[in-house]
Amino acid sequence: MAQDRMAPFLRGGKSMLLAYDQGLEHGPSKDFDERNVDPSFIMETAIKGGFNGVVFQKGVAERFYTGKVPLIVKVNGKTSLPQGEPVSKQVCTVEHAVSLGAKAVGYTIYLGSACEAEMLADFGRIQEEAHRRGVAAIAWIYPRGEGVQNDTSKEIVAYAARTGLELGADAVKIKYTGDSASFSWAVKSAAGVRVFMSGGPKTSTDEAFLQQVRGVMDAGATGLAVGRNVWQHRDPVMMAERIRKVIFENKSPEEA
Amino acid sequence: MAQDRMAPFLRGGKSMLLAYDQGLEHGPSKDFDERNVDPSFIMETAIKGGFNGVVFQKGVAERFYTGKVPLIVKVNGKTSLPQGEPVSKQVCTVEHAVSLGAKAVGYTIYLGSACEAEMLADFGRIQEEAHRRGVAAIAWIYPRGEGVQNDTSKEIVAYAARTGLELGADAVKIKYTGDSASFSWAVKSAAGVRVFMSGGPKTSTDEAFLQQVRGVMDAGATGLAVGRNVWQHRDPVMMAERIRKVIFENKSPEEA
Amino acid sequence: MAQDRMAPFLRGGKSMLLAYDQGLEHGPSKDFDERNVDPSFIMETAIKGGFNGVVFQKGVAERFYTGKVPLIVKVNGKTSLPQGEPVSKQVCTVEHAVSLGAKAVGYTIYLGSACEAEMLADFGRIQEEAHRRGVAAIAWIYPRGEGVQNDTSKEIVAYAARTGLELGADAVKIKYTGDSASFSWAVKSAAGVRVFMSGGPKTSTDEAFLQQVRGVMDAGATGLAVGRNVWQHRDPVMMAERIRKVIFENKSPEEA
Amino acid sequence: MAQDRMAPFLRGGKSMLLAYDQGLEHGPSKDFDERNVDPSFIMETAIKGGFNGVVFQKGVAERFYTGKVPLIVKVNGKTSLPQGEPVSKQVCTVEHAVSLGAKAVGYTIYLGSACEAEMLADFGRIQEEAHRRGVAAIAWIYPRGEGVQNDTSKEIVAYAARTGLELGADAVKIKYTGDSASFSWAVKSAAGVRVFMSGGPKTSTDEAFLQQVRGVMDAGATGLAVGRNVWQHRDPVMMAERIRKVIFENKSPEEA
Amino acid sequence: MAQDRMAPFLRGGKSMLLAYDQGLEHGPSKDFDERNVDPSFIMETAIKGGFNGVVFQKGVAERFYTGKVPLIVKVNGKTSLPQGEPVSKQVCTVEHAVSLGAKAVGYTIYLGSACEAEMLADFGRIQEEAHRRGVAAIAWIYPRGEGVQNDTSKEIVAYAARTGLELGADAVKIKYTGDSASFSWAVKSAAGVRVFMSGGPKTSTDEAFLQQVRGVMDAGATGLAVGRNVWQHRDPVMMAERIRKVIFENKSPEEA
Repeated sequence: MAQDRMAPFLRGGKSMLLAYDQGLEHGPSKDFDERNVDPSFIMETAIKGGFNGVVFQKGVAERFYTGKVPLIVKVNGKTSLPQGEPVSKQVCTVEHAVSLGAKAVGYTIYLGSACEAEMLADFGRIQEEAHRRGVAAIAWIYPRGEGVQNDTSKEIVAYAARTGLELGADAVKIKYTGDSASFSWAVKSAAGVRVFMSGGPKTSTDEAFLQQVRGVMDAGATGLAVGRNVWQHRDPVMMAERIRKVIFENKSPEEA
Repeated sequence: MAQDRMAPFLRGGKSMLLAYDQGLEHGPSKDFDERNVDPSFIMETAIKGGFNGVVFQKGVAERFYTGKVPLIVKVNGKTSLPQGEPVSKQVCTVEHAVSLGAKAVGYTIYLGSACEAEMLADFGRIQEEAHRRGVAAIAWIYPRGEGVQNDTSKEIVAYAARTGLELGADAVKIKYTGDSASFSWAVKSAAGVRVFMSGGPKTSTDEAFLQQVRGVMDAGATGLAVGRNVWQHRDPVMMAERIRKVIFENKSPEEA
Repeated sequence: MAQDRMAPFLRGGKSMLLAYDQGLEHGPSKDFDERNVDPSFIMETAIKGGFNGVVFQKGVAERFYTGKVPLIVKVNGKTSLPQGEPVSKQVCTVEHAVSLGAKAVGYTIYLGSACEAEMLADFGRIQEEAHRRGVAAIAWIYPRGEGVQNDTSKEIVAYAARTGLELGADAVKIKYTGDSASFSWAVKSAAGVRVFMSGGPKTSTDEAFLQQVRGVMDAGATGLAVGRNVWQHRDPVMMAERIRKVIFENKSPEEA
Repeated sequence: MAQDRMAPFLRGGKSMLLAYDQGLEHGPSKDFDERNVDPSFIMETAIKGGFNGVVFQKGVAERFYTGKVPLIVKVNGKTSLPQGEPVSKQVCTVEHAVSLGAKAVGYTIYLGSACEAEMLADFGRIQEEAHRRGVAAIAWIYPRGEGVQNDTSKEIVAYAARTGLELGADAVKIKYTGDSASFSWAVKSAAGVRVFMSGGPKTSTDEAFLQQVRGVMDAGATGLAVGRNVWQHRDPVMMAERIRKVIFENKSPEEA
Repeated sequence: MAQDRMAPFLRGGKSMLLAYDQGLEHGPSKDFDERNVDPSFIMETAIKGGFNGVVFQKGVAERFYTGKVPLIVKVNGKTSLPQGEPVSKQVCTVEHAVSLGAKAVGYTIYLGSACEAEMLADFGRIQEEAHRRGVAAIAWIYPRGEGVQNDTSKEIVAYAARTGLELGADAVKIKYTGDSASFSWAVKSAAGVRVFMSGGPKTSTDEAFLQQVRGVMDAGATGLAVGRNVWQHRDPVMMAERIRKVIFENKSPEEA
């Protein structure tokens, strides 16, 4: 079954991924400090924090991936600098990602962009190649561009999730709608495709973030791909531990 | 003969297909509810409703197609979000569609779009590959974009049908013109290519829809590809039964 | 020699072709009636009218070509709907055209269009492939778009003819300039490439059309590709007969 | 050495080429008359005039090239009709050019055009293929388009010449700057790449043209590719003879 | 390890490269004089100056590379003439660069350009091919275009360096920020990818340039790729000697 391809990243059907593609997507000066600019620190955090997977661009994987946590290689990417309609093209072949040890490839689609068609077509091709090579194809689906007003509305987030299903993604990474009830519509729209919340920028308090995680899990999602809320945290391993309790032990934010 | 490739979808030369690509084309929040958001419900409806074929994107086919009704895989697709001239690119190879059990591939052409040339070329390529692999190539032909004022006029609908013939489609799916007499010009323009009416949005009454089906069949068409008028219906199997009577038993809407 | 590839379409070095790609280029409602919308009628007319070749898009050839008249398959095409600079892309491979029995492929170039470069490049590629497969490459060359004021001036028609020579076409199909003297400059510019007049819309009288044919032949052209002036005619076979007399028996319009 | 690939076109390290691609680039009505519209006349002039090479598009080469003078096939081309930024795409494969007997391929780059990048990339690819097949790659480099004010300034002509060197051309064809001193900077910038002056439009007197040729040779160039100043001349063979004396016998325009 | 691919260019982990692609990027009239317009002079300077590598476009390498200093071939390039968003396309295959003796290929990315996506994708492909062929892939990363205000700010230079890491470059060539402290953030962002300062235009005094080199080395960079500050210098070998002392002997500008 399609879901089996996500097995390397699951524990009891749930998952906590560590995302670290912000160096390309946002730039080091926006998100990094002297500590987390170093990918070794992230790799170490992935291991110590008990993550079920780590997300790197190929260059970081080539130099810093140690094989101790399952690997997802992002195969497209862009910087935050260009001003036009968002588009992100393939920068890594599926073959190369697999040669680096990846058990999944990640691809970002900007739904609603004037360049949407190009990204849908690329993902369609990559999905087939990933499956031929026995790895999962995970779609980062972010509504953005000329056709998008509000990228966290119930309707648009569900549309993102559904697009993952229609195109044969093994999992989708989407933004949180803000409440569990509306997010559950996205999960239903995905119809079995694994749903991961995209962690987003660091929240003002840990509890605010854990509340989101709780809502996501209550909505039936598989888990989350978190970056800044962990590796920008004073104590990433402790924060990972708290998130883990919410995801896997069904704890409330207060208990976690 | 070219027509033979449509044989898996025909009963006595007529056909009733169940379309379910709206999750990608319109988004789940526009067309779906808690029941029909689930592709299992659609697959079940296709079987119970006695449909001659079911239309899925590859992702839905991979997870939910059971093989009990002949399969058409749409090989291109887009969301409703982008604002520019409509264009839909290939997201599934013909090879992959066939590997999923498809007996036909479907491809949407937006006739009159500034991107028309790209879609005509893609369909031309896909048609040849489909035929090489022994499956039918069905063209969804929707006039839309800068060059189109009225997409249901007799003239434009006939143009759509004719384009299917010229490019070697085995069947075309086109909009209804509103009356049987004008639709028969589209059927004549198709010159033997199987003509299917595109079901469109749910009509206010069942009779209104059955009336369209009657007009389509009277015009010499092969049948229809219906989605929302069945799976948004309170009782999809009953509605399918009524449509079937109009198509195959030559009943009037009142009799059906 | 290059000219030999046109041999299947020649009788005594002259030729009369029946063109029927208007279903795609203009749409059925503009050019067709209940009779000529049916490609069987055209195929029959080609045979009874003694034509030296018939021009179809692949879809029409697949269903209606009977092999009794040499076949030219148009390998690109567009509708009349889009508003931008004219561009027509390849919709049929040369390989497929040949498999349908074609002895030549036809390709339309809109000279002067902002997309001219794309079409010149495509034709260049197709010409080489056609010759490798042993069939002729015929260029329909129509000046149109941003760079063209008057598409029937002596200068522009000669430019069209010459472009066919430069790119290695076996024959060119071009518009009539209006008089034999100026058209002979186009024939000279083609320097041995077979020149066919494009028939154009139905003239008000048969004589008006025959006059054009006479002028074309007097200018040294090979013949014409006629469509509407034959198959829109009340008596297509009779009209074909008259044209034939002008072309092959050197008759005047009055004699024919 | 790279220069050896030009050996077929050299006599004592100098060269006089006959260019005849104006039928496509300018159109027959602009440059041709009843005599020179015929490629046979040009081929004959190339032989009688003692030219070291002749430049044709593939279509002209296919029909008129007799093998008696070394052949250069232009592998891209455009008409003068489109209004936008100049771009010329490949219309002939290197393989085909070689099969016609070409000892070199020619490719035009419009330096400074908004489409420059596309042409640089194409030439880069063609250069490698030409060398793999053992023939020379000659770059016609014409500054033109949005980034160019004056296409014959010392600076821009040297830039054109240098671009040929950087991209690995065996020879460049560039415009004359107007005086020998400034043109020698272009020759120096080419750093060993063979420099040919582009003949340009017919000058008012023969002496005016021969003066240019003298200046070009004095600047250290290899020779010129001349078209209109020869085949528009009342006596092309006599004019060729005069040019030859300037190039090969180091004569002054007056002596020649 | 990835770094090993840079070994041919390193001495004690440090490096001084001689860049000479300005003939294409800026044009000969902007940067060259009668002496340095000749690539032989540059090759000689590279040898006598003890450089660890020399950077040529393929055409210069084909004619002037002698094999005595390790070679880097730039595989994309553009002129300074076009006015639009900066884009530089591949003009040399990796295979060809390697056949010329290159131990590394160089590729320029204009970060923030509207064409950024195209260049990121190209570099991603080239990086994989370079590594398959056993040579290094060096990214020239210059922020430029619609998305860039200040191309030497700490933030943007670090973003450039980081992009090199993310895409798997073996080394990056970036601009100097102006001071060592801020440049060290770029070095940290590169996380082990070799950082080279781009030499830039000739400084008013030698000391001003050596000061930059000192700052770059103090920031932890590998070295620099210098062009104009050496080969525009009255005494290039002496200037190279001074730079070498700063890089390899840890001298101050005054000592050097």
